[in-house]
Amino acid sequence: MEPLLLRALKRQPIERTPLWIMRQAGRYLPEYRALRQEAKQFLTLCRTPDLACQVTLQPLERYPLDAAILFSDILILPDVMGLGLDFVTHEGPVFRHPLQDERSIARLPIIDPAIELSYVLDAIRLIKANLKDKTPLIGFAGSPWTVATYMVEGGSSKHFNKIKKLLYADPVQLHQLLRVLAQNTAHYLQAQIEAGVDVVMLFDTWGGVLSHADFLTFSVPYMQSIVTEVKKKYPNVPVILFTKNGGRQLEALVETGADALGLDSGANVHLARQITRHRVALQGNLDPAALYAEPAQIVALVEKTLAEFGPGGGHVFNLGHGIYPDTNPEHVQVLCEAVRNLSPQFHVSQEVVMR
Amino acid sequence: MEPLLLRALKRQPIERTPLWIMRQAGRYLPEYRALRQEAKQFLTLCRTPDLACQVTLQPLERYPLDAAILFSDILILPDVMGLGLDFVTHEGPVFRHPLQDERSIARLPIIDPAIELSYVLDAIRLIKANLKDKTPLIGFAGSPWTVATYMVEGGSSKHFNKIKKLLYADPVQLHQLLRVLAQNTAHYLQAQIEAGVDVVMLFDTWGGVLSHADFLTFSVPYMQSIVTEVKKKYPNVPVILFTKNGGRQLEALVETGADALGLDSGANVHLARQITRHRVALQGNLDPAALYAEPAQIVALVEKTLAEFGPGGGHVFNLGHGIYPDTNPEHVQVLCEAVRNLSPQFHVSQEVVMR
Repeated sequence: MEPLLLRALKRQPIERTPLWIMRQAGRYLPEYRALRQEAKQFLTLCRTPDLACQVTLQPLERYPLDAAILFSDILILPDVMGLGLDFVTHEGPVFRHPLQDERSIARLPIIDPAIELSYVLDAIRLIKANLKDKTPLIGFAGSPWTVATYMVEGGSSKHFNKIKKLLYADPVQLHQLLRVLAQNTAHYLQAQIEAGVDVVMLFDTWGGVLSHADFLTFSVPYMQSIVTEVKKKYPNVPVILFTKNGGRQLEALVETGADALGLDSGANVHLARQITRHRVALQGNLDPAALYAEPAQIVALVEKTLAEFGPGGGHVFNLGHGIYPDTNPEHVQVLCEAVRNLSPQFHVSQEVVMR
Repeated sequence: MEPLLLRALKRQPIERTPLWIMRQAGRYLPEYRALRQEAKQFLTLCRTPDLACQVTLQPLERYPLDAAILFSDILILPDVMGLGLDFVTHEGPVFRHPLQDERSIARLPIIDPAIELSYVLDAIRLIKANLKDKTPLIGFAGSPWTVATYMVEGGSSKHFNKIKKLLYADPVQLHQLLRVLAQNTAHYLQAQIEAGVDVVMLFDTWGGVLSHADFLTFSVPYMQSIVTEVKKKYPNVPVILFTKNGGRQLEALVETGADALGLDSGANVHLARQITRHRVALQGNLDPAALYAEPAQIVALVEKTLAEFGPGGGHVFNLGHGIYPDTNPEHVQVLCEAVRNLSPQFHVSQEVVMR
């Protein structure tokens, strides 16, 4: 039988709701902070297979999670496309060579992940060899639109002025950029699957800053082409799409052919179920801040979340955003136990209930 | 006959779609930048009635807009509640005395706007005396939840950790804070109406960072109580609510009794119309970045926006977010003319069309 997560993503009958946590390998764990300090640079963790493997496995050693997720960053793809990534304290990611004109977009290469991103593929092979209990491994990349925002803005942004200027003043150039990104991302995810990941996820962190029409023009089609390319080669590998603030665009996301959609914490789950009508699995969406509450309250919030997603399967429990760095690790244990203990009641009957 | 904006907000038949622009008095205007430089401090502009009046009127002197909006800031209320507001270059608003414990919340005063915020009321009277053509004036405040985020975080925030910690660890305290804010805000808006504003608007800038359930618990009820208080005294003054990223929560916002809801640029207008079913007017939602496009393209995007909101009235044209500081002022003229020229076709028939 396939692992629980995969069956849930395929909306097959399951015995309990699987759980994994966005940023589960990260700063809230003292063992992560220790490794991070030793490595000096965040990127050293990503680029050293043995370290990426250790970090990926850390949360699995503590908690009964239903998936591992590759420790990496969505910006290492544009890094190897020639933009040169640094992480600057208090500033976040910064590119040494952001895209500044038509020429810099035209010059962007189609990469070979087996060469330029071999360290990721090595990390995946190492993680898979070390994963016990057939825990599945999730691979990922950023959506073309989201990665493009960093490439054009030069780093994180508040108002996205530069890329929006490109979008409205020179959409042809933006489409060219997104096409190259989509192609590289499809190859990159295929390579991750070849190296061993069981599920792939696209993080469309900034899809929500687009107008509805622009979302349909500049984000969805490129995610869709990636889903299509991945499915063409690996029809059985589930694909998850996560657009932050994407609760209003779910119909378009369903039509991409993805197996599951991530919901952020602000999503109206009732509305999301109405729109998606059990055509995809849904993943989410407990507010990471809920882990600030006392244990009894966390248990109550987990039960409320399970009830919102309802019976009938097709739900993967997760937070709606990455776990906060100042989360008490003991509260994560409470979360894991609550999902494990409370979710079977939502799966007692195996008849398919319409979402 | 009442001004166009008021009739649109009341969903009465109108001859064309009214237009105003969030942050229409602001940095994209050279005459604003000149006054701002002279005043040295942003807060000096807010606190000096003559300057606030001049700034408020600047865009009206350039463009045929259908409303003026008071030049002020949502944080001057907590400023006079004792938190002490500064604007720090590159950092934005910072409170000298953020709320740090139960005691500091318990100490928060109920203010008398006629005393503590007399400079705002003086500015309103001055603006009204100077407004030609019966152009209506919009007054505003922040929503209690939104203002509370700044009071607890101490300024702007990215992840809202502190207030979310308060929400999950000590909700009783947060409710106490929101109650005091709602009471002060209701009094403040009533005082603005007494001084002469024709419409009031609540900016719920950070309502979208709450989970759906928390939004219904910590933001909506306090906005609702403000709407109720304002309507009790001034039933004929339209109230607009604007929750950024609130497109998923519109049903709850309709039920507050507000006359109109603002939609941000990411909103799915089709879905918004389905949910609100002509029970409120809708305001928005052209992406401010659309003003980066060439004039012909701006005209096309205006027409598309008008078509999305459809015929039958109940639409106030606006951007979905504040206008960007690097907007070309000539493109604002293009926007104004496009709305003025293209909107009458959506009002030819006066029969009520279901949204």
